[in-house]
Amino acid sequence: MRDGCHVFPIRVYYEDTDAAGVVYYANYLRFAERARTEMLRLVAEQPMRAMAADGAAFVVRRCALDYRAPAHLDESIEVRSRLVAAKGATLVARQTVMRAADVLVEIDVEVACMTRAGRPTRVPAALRDALTPFTHSRKEPS
Amino acid sequence: MRDGCHVFPIRVYYEDTDAAGVVYYANYLRFAERARTEMLRLVAEQPMRAMAADGAAFVVRRCALDYRAPAHLDESIEVRSRLVAAKGATLVARQTVMRAADVLVEIDVEVACMTRAGRPTRVPAALRDALTPFTHSRKEPS
Amino acid sequence: MRDGCHVFPIRVYYEDTDAAGVVYYANYLRFAERARTEMLRLVAEQPMRAMAADGAAFVVRRCALDYRAPAHLDESIEVRSRLVAAKGATLVARQTVMRAADVLVEIDVEVACMTRAGRPTRVPAALRDALTPFTHSRKEPS
Amino acid sequence: MRDGCHVFPIRVYYEDTDAAGVVYYANYLRFAERARTEMLRLVAEQPMRAMAADGAAFVVRRCALDYRAPAHLDESIEVRSRLVAAKGATLVARQTVMRAADVLVEIDVEVACMTRAGRPTRVPAALRDALTPFTHSRKEPS
Repeated sequence: MRDGCHVFPIRVYYEDTDAAGVVYYANYLRFAERARTEMLRLVAEQPMRAMAADGAAFVVRRCALDYRAPAHLDESIEVRSRLVAAKGATLVARQTVMRAADVLVEIDVEVACMTRAGRPTRVPAALRDALTPFTHSRKEPS
Repeated sequence: MRDGCHVFPIRVYYEDTDAAGVVYYANYLRFAERARTEMLRLVAEQPMRAMAADGAAFVVRRCALDYRAPAHLDESIEVRSRLVAAKGATLVARQTVMRAADVLVEIDVEVACMTRAGRPTRVPAALRDALTPFTHSRKEPS
Repeated sequence: MRDGCHVFPIRVYYEDTDAAGVVYYANYLRFAERARTEMLRLVAEQPMRAMAADGAAFVVRRCALDYRAPAHLDESIEVRSRLVAAKGATLVARQTVMRAADVLVEIDVEVACMTRAGRPTRVPAALRDALTPFTHSRKEPS
Repeated sequence: MRDGCHVFPIRVYYEDTDAAGVVYYANYLRFAERARTEMLRLVAEQPMRAMAADGAAFVVRRCALDYRAPAHLDESIEVRSRLVAAKGATLVARQTVMRAADVLVEIDVEVACMTRAGRPTRVPAALRDALTPFTHSRKEPS
């Protein structure tokens, strides 16, 4: 955690790259999910377990990626994640993939809390509270 | 090709799914790229080769995914692709992943034509012309 | 189907390659599973469904890969599959990834039929019979 | 590093699993390569760089996987790697994927040192020496 962001380090391996010599464009979504998972594990392990016990789960509804610069084999990069909105059944995260001070990819992700029956349901208050340290109204990296 | 869209069939295998029992959210970008590649191969093999010989290539700059419903193991789905904008160095495609008449995921992709040195360069006219059959101004599936 | 082998064509896309410019070594196992799935669908759709209804499924127990030559972006390759042994709960397949007449990778896969409780159970006779067209005692490609 | 093995921890994410609820069988090869890469980075960063400067690289020639038990979503597992043979152009590693004391998958990998022209070439002595801490003649985990 740094500057109010969750920071998750990633090393780029062969599996992440493609024949263009850079990280394959879909794989940034894998990196983003690893980072979201660890952010939740860090601050909200107990509320996540309670939510699962109630039969609810997060589902990605929308995401948008803005590719600024590519990552390459063997580079050390990081995903900085923060919450930019939370209302009703929905959480919106802004995740920035960086290499040192360079922004590589900006990812906006909207997830919805869904019942087992597939209906949206309110994000549990305990979970939303747990995420406060990573919640920002600004959209820019601090 | 159907209704002015390029139609690319895909079968869902274990490799595409995750422990939630559905196609993993990043993998729709893999499907989308297969479909774009085959659309270009179908109508623009010669212009693509000329572009590559000039040292230019397409790079994804932006994409947005709207997940409406999940695909499951063993299902037959298809990607319908069409061009919705082309100007300067940029092409914008709208790709819809469907299972029969159901829309599963809508994907908007913006690609830029880049020189080897990493600068945007005009999409070759021959390539743009070749894509005419898949070019629409409307955004809705016909 | 050709020469007593099931033949499954594959096109190599960016997602399959890595920064070395060739297909990533793990991805041949993805290709091999697609081919096995289609071989079973072609001749044994009904026995597979009966097996699933009984709560049994195939699980990979062992595999071995011999990498002879790499496949590259955009190449058309194929997986030739045949059954080389079937006894008790076990099936052994030999799968060869080829580009035209060149052998790229030889894959030997042993799968076991398992109950939901995780115990090996006899491969149903109807399933084994359905696979007869692809069953060989020889190990060499014909 | 523990018991003469290189130990590399891995967390299982959604991207690693499939609709059967377990880690997809090909993905253990991704885990194994991450572990080999980090083992080399730990003890042989300088010799690896020298080898690359000479235009040589490691290529996987053969691997064999023995699947004993599956890993699941969110589990913490580790890859224990050691060198079991090194002669001429070839290194052989035995890598064991474990969850606590349980062996999940045993992987034997043979890599060859290749010139840019695609010919096998002697593993540099400095590289082989650097790997001594992880070199065993025994095949069993210690």
